[in-house]
Amino acid sequence: MSTFQHIKPAGKAQFKDRYTTKAAELLTPWEEGKKGDIAIIGAPLSKPSISHSGASFAPDAIRRCLNSFTTYNIERGTDLQEDSKTIIDFGDISMHPTSIEESHQRIYESTKAVTETNTAPFTIILGGDHSITTSTVKAIKETKGTVGIIQFDAHHDLRNTEDGGPTNGTPFRRLIEEGHLQGDHLIQIGIRNYANAKAYHDYAIEQGVTVYTMKDVRQSNSSITELIQHALTQLESKVDTIYLSVDMDVLDQAFAPGCPAIGPGGMHPDTLMEAVQTALEHPKVTTMDIVEIDPTLDTRDMTSRVAAHLILETLSK
Amino acid sequence: MSTFQHIKPAGKAQFKDRYTTKAAELLTPWEEGKKGDIAIIGAPLSKPSISHSGASFAPDAIRRCLNSFTTYNIERGTDLQEDSKTIIDFGDISMHPTSIEESHQRIYESTKAVTETNTAPFTIILGGDHSITTSTVKAIKETKGTVGIIQFDAHHDLRNTEDGGPTNGTPFRRLIEEGHLQGDHLIQIGIRNYANAKAYHDYAIEQGVTVYTMKDVRQSNSSITELIQHALTQLESKVDTIYLSVDMDVLDQAFAPGCPAIGPGGMHPDTLMEAVQTALEHPKVTTMDIVEIDPTLDTRDMTSRVAAHLILETLSK
Amino acid sequence: MSTFQHIKPAGKAQFKDRYTTKAAELLTPWEEGKKGDIAIIGAPLSKPSISHSGASFAPDAIRRCLNSFTTYNIERGTDLQEDSKTIIDFGDISMHPTSIEESHQRIYESTKAVTETNTAPFTIILGGDHSITTSTVKAIKETKGTVGIIQFDAHHDLRNTEDGGPTNGTPFRRLIEEGHLQGDHLIQIGIRNYANAKAYHDYAIEQGVTVYTMKDVRQSNSSITELIQHALTQLESKVDTIYLSVDMDVLDQAFAPGCPAIGPGGMHPDTLMEAVQTALEHPKVTTMDIVEIDPTLDTRDMTSRVAAHLILETLSK
Amino acid sequence: MSTFQHIKPAGKAQFKDRYTTKAAELLTPWEEGKKGDIAIIGAPLSKPSISHSGASFAPDAIRRCLNSFTTYNIERGTDLQEDSKTIIDFGDISMHPTSIEESHQRIYESTKAVTETNTAPFTIILGGDHSITTSTVKAIKETKGTVGIIQFDAHHDLRNTEDGGPTNGTPFRRLIEEGHLQGDHLIQIGIRNYANAKAYHDYAIEQGVTVYTMKDVRQSNSSITELIQHALTQLESKVDTIYLSVDMDVLDQAFAPGCPAIGPGGMHPDTLMEAVQTALEHPKVTTMDIVEIDPTLDTRDMTSRVAAHLILETLSK
Amino acid sequence: MSTFQHIKPAGKAQFKDRYTTKAAELLTPWEEGKKGDIAIIGAPLSKPSISHSGASFAPDAIRRCLNSFTTYNIERGTDLQEDSKTIIDFGDISMHPTSIEESHQRIYESTKAVTETNTAPFTIILGGDHSITTSTVKAIKETKGTVGIIQFDAHHDLRNTEDGGPTNGTPFRRLIEEGHLQGDHLIQIGIRNYANAKAYHDYAIEQGVTVYTMKDVRQSNSSITELIQHALTQLESKVDTIYLSVDMDVLDQAFAPGCPAIGPGGMHPDTLMEAVQTALEHPKVTTMDIVEIDPTLDTRDMTSRVAAHLILETLSK
Amino acid sequence: MSTFQHIKPAGKAQFKDRYTTKAAELLTPWEEGKKGDIAIIGAPLSKPSISHSGASFAPDAIRRCLNSFTTYNIERGTDLQEDSKTIIDFGDISMHPTSIEESHQRIYESTKAVTETNTAPFTIILGGDHSITTSTVKAIKETKGTVGIIQFDAHHDLRNTEDGGPTNGTPFRRLIEEGHLQGDHLIQIGIRNYANAKAYHDYAIEQGVTVYTMKDVRQSNSSITELIQHALTQLESKVDTIYLSVDMDVLDQAFAPGCPAIGPGGMHPDTLMEAVQTALEHPKVTTMDIVEIDPTLDTRDMTSRVAAHLILETLSK
Ligand SMILES: [Ca+2]
Ligand SMILES: [Ca+2]
Ligand SMILES: [Ca+2]
Ligand SMILES: [Ca+2]
Ligand SMILES: [Ca+2]
Ligand SMILES: [Ca+2]
Ligand SMILES: [Ca+2]
Ligand SMILES: [Ca+2]
Ligand SMILES: [Ca+2]
Ligand SMILES: [Ca+2]
Ligand SMILES: [Ca+2]
Ligand SMILES: [Ca+2]
Repeated sequence: MSTFQHIKPAGKAQFKDRYTTKAAELLTPWEEGKKGDIAIIGAPLSKPSISHSGASFAPDAIRRCLNSFTTYNIERGTDLQEDSKTIIDFGDISMHPTSIEESHQRIYESTKAVTETNTAPFTIILGGDHSITTSTVKAIKETKGTVGIIQFDAHHDLRNTEDGGPTNGTPFRRLIEEGHLQGDHLIQIGIRNYANAKAYHDYAIEQGVTVYTMKDVRQSNSSITELIQHALTQLESKVDTIYLSVDMDVLDQAFAPGCPAIGPGGMHPDTLMEAVQTALEHPKVTTMDIVEIDPTLDTRDMTSRVAAHLILETLSK
Repeated sequence: MSTFQHIKPAGKAQFKDRYTTKAAELLTPWEEGKKGDIAIIGAPLSKPSISHSGASFAPDAIRRCLNSFTTYNIERGTDLQEDSKTIIDFGDISMHPTSIEESHQRIYESTKAVTETNTAPFTIILGGDHSITTSTVKAIKETKGTVGIIQFDAHHDLRNTEDGGPTNGTPFRRLIEEGHLQGDHLIQIGIRNYANAKAYHDYAIEQGVTVYTMKDVRQSNSSITELIQHALTQLESKVDTIYLSVDMDVLDQAFAPGCPAIGPGGMHPDTLMEAVQTALEHPKVTTMDIVEIDPTLDTRDMTSRVAAHLILETLSK
Repeated sequence: MSTFQHIKPAGKAQFKDRYTTKAAELLTPWEEGKKGDIAIIGAPLSKPSISHSGASFAPDAIRRCLNSFTTYNIERGTDLQEDSKTIIDFGDISMHPTSIEESHQRIYESTKAVTETNTAPFTIILGGDHSITTSTVKAIKETKGTVGIIQFDAHHDLRNTEDGGPTNGTPFRRLIEEGHLQGDHLIQIGIRNYANAKAYHDYAIEQGVTVYTMKDVRQSNSSITELIQHALTQLESKVDTIYLSVDMDVLDQAFAPGCPAIGPGGMHPDTLMEAVQTALEHPKVTTMDIVEIDPTLDTRDMTSRVAAHLILETLSK
Repeated sequence: MSTFQHIKPAGKAQFKDRYTTKAAELLTPWEEGKKGDIAIIGAPLSKPSISHSGASFAPDAIRRCLNSFTTYNIERGTDLQEDSKTIIDFGDISMHPTSIEESHQRIYESTKAVTETNTAPFTIILGGDHSITTSTVKAIKETKGTVGIIQFDAHHDLRNTEDGGPTNGTPFRRLIEEGHLQGDHLIQIGIRNYANAKAYHDYAIEQGVTVYTMKDVRQSNSSITELIQHALTQLESKVDTIYLSVDMDVLDQAFAPGCPAIGPGGMHPDTLMEAVQTALEHPKVTTMDIVEIDPTLDTRDMTSRVAAHLILETLSK
Repeated sequence: MSTFQHIKPAGKAQFKDRYTTKAAELLTPWEEGKKGDIAIIGAPLSKPSISHSGASFAPDAIRRCLNSFTTYNIERGTDLQEDSKTIIDFGDISMHPTSIEESHQRIYESTKAVTETNTAPFTIILGGDHSITTSTVKAIKETKGTVGIIQFDAHHDLRNTEDGGPTNGTPFRRLIEEGHLQGDHLIQIGIRNYANAKAYHDYAIEQGVTVYTMKDVRQSNSSITELIQHALTQLESKVDTIYLSVDMDVLDQAFAPGCPAIGPGGMHPDTLMEAVQTALEHPKVTTMDIVEIDPTLDTRDMTSRVAAHLILETLSK
Repeated sequence: MSTFQHIKPAGKAQFKDRYTTKAAELLTPWEEGKKGDIAIIGAPLSKPSISHSGASFAPDAIRRCLNSFTTYNIERGTDLQEDSKTIIDFGDISMHPTSIEESHQRIYESTKAVTETNTAPFTIILGGDHSITTSTVKAIKETKGTVGIIQFDAHHDLRNTEDGGPTNGTPFRRLIEEGHLQGDHLIQIGIRNYANAKAYHDYAIEQGVTVYTMKDVRQSNSSITELIQHALTQLESKVDTIYLSVDMDVLDQAFAPGCPAIGPGGMHPDTLMEAVQTALEHPKVTTMDIVEIDPTLDTRDMTSRVAAHLILETLSK
């Protein structure tokens, strides 16, 4: 009946311009057999964080921010919708309220299950805090082989696990100690002054981890591209697949006000974007996580908007 | 595959206690032929407001708050789910971005269409600002006959329409002037000092409107029930159907911080609840709107929580 | 030219309903010889406060809130505009940025000057913090004779001045010590548990101050009127003029979230309103101050709205 | 040297009035052998919460709020300092970042250790979320014998533990199931409509738990004292010690905006205060916890101020 | 009388340094015949916005921010007051509460009336949302002849008007379609990735619009000046007057947190400032609007401060 | 007893990683005779500020932010703890609530006393507003001889003192007028457009003050180092000691949202860091103040984090 023409499902009654596709419309809930260009899954876990964190709200916030973007890349002249790009959305992994061990196990199992479906050539995991990366990398290793990691982060995340267990300060330590990652397959970019213990930098060096500080980034300034290309070259012959781990606190606090561990002296988002774009061009780069956004601390979802922007770039891959 | 057991659709991966039903689970999207205990529809319109208002966000906020309530009424010993109570959710009416006239027309048409389906014996319209009530009452009148209104409000809402057109200050004036409502079928409760022009109070009296000020409410204190019963008796023989129009600013600012026009000297929410409960017992009471909640101004959705609580009471009707 | 018809001075281009007078429209800037029903003056001083305070913003905030009220008192059936009530607004006293002594002196001189104009039978001073009251009462005493004070406050404000000078904790102590006020001409209402030092309560008793605690107020519950009438009777034969000093922190924190020293266990605003209304009926009550509202801490100007409401009641005097 | 006279340790350089003792000054860090009137210990744990909670910040916030109170109870005419009342502050229990089981164990062990010192006749545990109560009650039982509990709460907290483990929805269920508490030794006050599953109310009844809903509280209005006295009488002959468990969400949302699970229809703080005062008069009442305050959600620490106020009342015991 | 020396009109009692002129003091309310260097008028309209917008508060906010600037340009060594620069403030255009069509008509008529007075060689219109630009450009065209536009914006604003009427997404489309602007007289600068529909970019190209993306801006980095000079050269021979339309969302979200449509990847304010300065040097540049600032979303008026800064630059023209 | 192992003093029960030293742990309360690398003292005074300021909270906030930094400088490869660097914390100077003159005197006396202890080769004073600098420089002059100042500031701070006394707009004027500082010993960096009166710039020039505007800074862009070296060369032969006065509002508002006088067009924090690092290398640089941070206005302590970062750099001196 025509009188129903203006009634829309709850939350869907907003203005629709017939020529505009919002990026969020590219999200298609997963169903058995569906294929797409990227697969996305949320890991809303932040209880392992050392400091209070609402990073568990980030998958929702990032998806919500996809409503603030369209599908058209004016700089390349390409349109994600015209090019039939699709994001298969597996939804979120349900977390256990009181067992962090169980939650990590669920992330491992779910990431493995998602990857085994071969739904898409590229997978994005939305954290959550950085503790999830041990689980996701372990799953990727089992499905795709030896993993190399390019980590964007202000912090090493190589803390000892005796003091606090599998916190968000330990993911790469646990991967190395548990034998899922070789130190020389890990490249850390954006590590910051007065943000890490010397002991963990020493550990990184001992393990053969490649460390680029913010000073390195600043000095390579107009050429983060070269730094990334160098990193890719270093990894490509040694590993089967390359995993990008993007801790948003690699950005300066003015540009990422919603990270739990904000601080001055960080990266500009245009630099991060360029770095990720360069990495995406490499055929072995097949997985990315985006972690450490706490929407309850953010200013107008600014940090989640940067994350949503990064996701769209993966579709131009 | 069992490894998918913890993956849930986006936004649905929260903790589930097997014995607890959240009130939001009672919401069932409308489909042709479905019947329920109450029908709900959102009218997310606030552009007609005299002052800046984000009341268009209220339908979403109120539905979201239903997640903070369960289905069990411990005081009556009844459970909405056990009693198979259902809320048929028609969703929201899509508003025109630049034509308020068209938006009002859509609300009229949609409310009429919803009511004509005879989906439920009770209908709730979630505003939006109070301007929507002219449209909804007009629709109710065409489907249910002569309408009597019990309006909870700090304000008369009887402003002249020449100065600003169909604003949120005019709904009952427009109903009277357009012949959809007789003045003596309107009962206003909670009208407040220094919140109205004398001219509009004079107009109310002239038109035979019954006006209970906050002083009347305070003096009837332990007996708002009697005041409401008196109102119902006054209306029941004259009208075919009774419509409750709940402008949340009837409440004191400490209890309804999210209304655009907050102020001191208002009603306590327990009194409003008791008044609505009493009204709901009357068989001719078949429709209710809840208006003037601006979630962008609210403190932790407090005002929307009161609204959600009111909705649940209608299910015990 | 007709094309200019919609252009209004900056900040005045808001919607105007021809039948509605906003209470703020009663404000008339003072000019030599002008007479009115109440005179109002702002004392935007909060640097003497013991804790950080933005009470200097309160005169602006309270005037702004007068825009949220109309002139019609529906409970009495009277209209301030119809009754030609006017508020002569003397504006604000300019404070010295670094000399609190000079600022206090300016408040004294200005209040005296204002009172000497005999502009209105009732004067309202808008603080500022409570330290201003020493200056204003001193001025009132010189123009109107012996002063009796009814103070609404959670605190005695009788601290010693050696430790911090003329802070907002000392106004009544200074008045007594400097000989401007007899202890038995001071009646304190709403004094709260765990909000004062015993030494100052002892001082109050020694000086003959009458103290009503919140317990006294709660117990007189439905009869704050009687408590006030008793206070007036006690003062009327001893003093020439009665001054109401309203520290908004006498209210419970839920109703006055904008006071620097909020706390639980305070008065309900309806009780304060009733108390002030009762006091205003007495012919010797000629001055009132409203102090200790910090708009930078408030929630949506709630506390200033209560203040604005109190001001309107003085016009019904 | 005299020039150092104005230099104070960091954070201590605030104004000091020589006659005023702030309640926070009663806090004395525990040392072996020290005795006091109450012992206090913080359990900053909120990771077990079903919804995101920063209740781990509450012990700090509540102690900070003790700076906003003095030691003088004007209504009783007693001064905590004059009466040499002391609060022995054991500090906070260090929580494990990723093992909730370990954190609960630490709370149990620490509470037991604290109680065994016999430092004070009354002990207060500052949560944290309500999950801590299983640990604390278990400890109290081992040191003081059979425990009876008067729980102030909007919720039963009797959820099944299979779905989420030892969350903040389960403390009393776990106590009963683990044999530390008999159902008929538990009295729940303030249980609210649409805030619980029917299954858990049924469980309560089955287990012999006494349940007073908010309707019961409202109806006993001027006599919460009698309701509490009745509860005490019911428990006193059956148990060795009585434990008050105060979940601040028993209060109405307008008065306790900082609880994770706020809602309308709750208790007024004056009623809670009166109830606690009445309970404290009973010699068997020896322990109290205050839980479910999330300072990151609060408005100006209002909810923590109520908590601080409650603590002071225990000193008048 | 000397005792009145410290009393100032309400809101004017702040500290005055005798040697400092605040930029806000340059604002002179318009009177018939008055001439000045720039004319300013507010168009407080945001109801046409596609998303909820409080841009109607921007004229007030921007004027308020002029209080945070002085008149002295240290880099040029010139002082606006010494140079007798004046801003004639026409005030704000009164908007119709419920007819957007009428509001747009009033903006057209008022801008035309203001321009026809020939009060100043340069006119600034303060939005409001971007929908106002159709009205203002139409007025400018009628008074000054063929209009060329340099638009700073993340968005094309060339949406079809069938779907939503004259929203803030359509101003330039409407100008072109209604024949007030030729496509090749429009130069867009700062258009951003994933912020527009491809269809509208195609439309821009079809209509001969010149489009500079953010990539173009970044690449011209140290030479935005050249880009602007190129744009001016392109327009100067074809049009009678050049209009700058500054949508503040052209800036990166970190620098313009108060725009409704914030996002990453935008311009730095120093670049915008340099671009506007360059444009202002051209004699045909006679009008500017500043739109899309929503003060209710801003952080400490940061975005309005940038706007105020831009206004001051026009006075150095 | 082992069961006490998890109980820590209030506020100290947070997670401890055995290999990580937080920068805050370098803070050692001063005791007679203790020596360290830097001495730190708080001057929590903001009542002299022209506009409302909570800069008195900054010493606490900055110290708190030292908890967000570690001791390891990855770019230099040095660790402050390994190098046994210590910060002797003298605490805060107690301010007089109502006498600004007395407060300034206390700052003078305390700074002198602190410096005379010869506790450390470098002293940092944490403001407070900029008015404190007159007092501190006077003290430094008396203990270390002729003072040269490098001031980072958007403002000259050379206002006349007749209009407002010793406000935060006057510190350098007072130093010059009182003979404690020669104009040509003052170098101002970062002075901004429309942020100063011409009269004060003229005064600066007259007095021989060296002024670098933001344009100068931008143009020296990649070489702020040279600008600073030039400044040091200019001062070194003329003065006994060089004092860095860092008004955080020299930074752009996006990077220092917590300064009272924020604005666009300011310095990037990396530039400020580089400038301070360069200055610290000079042996005559022995004192620094950090002023004009108002934590009540800040976003997540961002501005205090920059301050904390600056402090750590002084330890690498
Ligand atoms: Ca990390
Ligand atoms: Ca990190
Ligand atoms: Ca209404
Ligand atoms: Ca209303
Ligand atoms: Ca007071
Ligand atoms: Ca007080
Ligand atoms: Ca509970
Ligand atoms: Ca509860
Ligand atoms: Ca635009
Ligand atoms: Ca735009
Ligand atoms: Ca300064
Ligand atoms: Ca400055």
